[in-house]
Amino acid sequence: MDFTAQLQAYRNRVERGLADLVPPAATRPARLHAAMRYSLEAGGKRLRPVLVLAAADLFGAREADALPAAVAIECLHTYSLIHDDLPCMDNDDLRRGRPTAHRQFDEATALLAGDALLTLAFQLVARHYAALPAVCAALTREIADAAGSEQLIGGQMEDLLAESRADATAAELEFIHLNKTAAMLRAALAAGGLCAGAGPAELELLRRAGRHLGLAFQIVDDILDATADSATLGKTAGKDARAGKTTYVKVHGLAASRGHARAQSEAAIAALRALPGDTAFLVALVENMAVRAS
Amino acid sequence: MDFTAQLQAYRNRVERGLADLVPPAATRPARLHAAMRYSLEAGGKRLRPVLVLAAADLFGAREADALPAAVAIECLHTYSLIHDDLPCMDNDDLRRGRPTAHRQFDEATALLAGDALLTLAFQLVARHYAALPAVCAALTREIADAAGSEQLIGGQMEDLLAESRADATAAELEFIHLNKTAAMLRAALAAGGLCAGAGPAELELLRRAGRHLGLAFQIVDDILDATADSATLGKTAGKDARAGKTTYVKVHGLAASRGHARAQSEAAIAALRALPGDTAFLVALVENMAVRAS
Repeated sequence: MDFTAQLQAYRNRVERGLADLVPPAATRPARLHAAMRYSLEAGGKRLRPVLVLAAADLFGAREADALPAAVAIECLHTYSLIHDDLPCMDNDDLRRGRPTAHRQFDEATALLAGDALLTLAFQLVARHYAALPAVCAALTREIADAAGSEQLIGGQMEDLLAESRADATAAELEFIHLNKTAAMLRAALAAGGLCAGAGPAELELLRRAGRHLGLAFQIVDDILDATADSATLGKTAGKDARAGKTTYVKVHGLAASRGHARAQSEAAIAALRALPGDTAFLVALVENMAVRAS
Repeated sequence: MDFTAQLQAYRNRVERGLADLVPPAATRPARLHAAMRYSLEAGGKRLRPVLVLAAADLFGAREADALPAAVAIECLHTYSLIHDDLPCMDNDDLRRGRPTAHRQFDEATALLAGDALLTLAFQLVARHYAALPAVCAALTREIADAAGSEQLIGGQMEDLLAESRADATAAELEFIHLNKTAAMLRAALAAGGLCAGAGPAELELLRRAGRHLGLAFQIVDDILDATADSATLGKTAGKDARAGKTTYVKVHGLAASRGHARAQSEAAIAALRALPGDTAFLVALVENMAVRAS
């Protein structure tokens, strides 16, 4: 398997899905739809929708095309970035080198575009899986719970509360990482399984892989922020440390952080290897990410 | 039928549903859940969830208890109020005599509480109708589309754009009323029907009744803003006119507005009367609202 080519193929499918399934920018009100597309088209790794598609591909006989679920999860991720960037949250002017939505448009438009992308995730699931109500209902539950007040939004809230103090504990940090990051990766892998008719035991393995992948991802992110230079990173390095933010590296030290990242990656890979089908791509994706921090 | 007693009985069911189905204020993160409950518990007429319950009651043999759908729609309505009140939108300090969410907590908490209530609507539907996947899928689609970028959020966006100019046309005003107000009333009646196993023709009648009720409701609101004193209204009268906002009364004049409100109410009642079951409560609800403006 050529990992890079396969990753690009998945990303291309995601880009086409976004182009096809999100309302055109000219849809009334045009300003709102233009802002939604502006943020979706900012690019990024498309990690979450790629996970949906790759998880679905593990199962030969699919119940439903996983692309609408993949697009729905990217809409959710993009909404969370738009709202995170707002002045009352992180107050960021740039994302991936472009003005953030509220800088390019205005705050009210950015707020509503975020709301609209969150809602669109559920519209897409409801519309595209209408002929398979059981899949539709299970997908809605999986992604709504992951996005909800006890997971994604709860993680953002605790992150915000922790930012104002420099003494967040290891347990608080784990709550934030589990909910702000891991919950949506877990839901992405499970959503792929749900589209493909995975059984309960397989869904649990997918969720476990997503949870460990999410934790590894967040620890690696903290390690890179502490060790890489800005050029390598493609964004300002050392930002978290300077902001006085509690990071994994600050709480556990660099050596232990590397060990924990490795352990989480291995746990993700072990869960993936217990699944049927050809898991080589997903295993390579986890290894690729983990290797950046070592 | 004692309209007032029946309305109170429905409202009591809604209050109990909110208390039971929304996560307790102590759920982690406590600040987020406290803000969600603070806004939900601000009271209000509970018009939308009452419509869900009353529509379900038209059909004798119910498929599912309509209460979770009613609570979901009240969560959606409350999220839209929280975000509407934010400084970048209407910048309101008070709602129903209490500090708005961002004044009582802070902007970031209010933003996230709104996001969380929007998401909770879909969590509730997914969780409580899991045993009836077809009902779950249809409900998700009905309320997601009504809340989406081409309806509720689209109406808010156009309302915002229209506010900055004093020359909004009658067509623009109708787009705003249809989407910002009528869409969710229509979804509320349809959601009640979906929980109760209503057929396609019945669902269409419910949607038509909701659409006309929503338009009547918004015209009456504009008439009251122009004619009632603040004491009668329970809020500042004449606010729209002073803000230079285009209202129904400004575009059509008072007499024509009263005529249109009456016509929309009658169209809502005609659709209701074509439905099976005892429609007396819903008809009385429409008449009660319309009479306030005459």
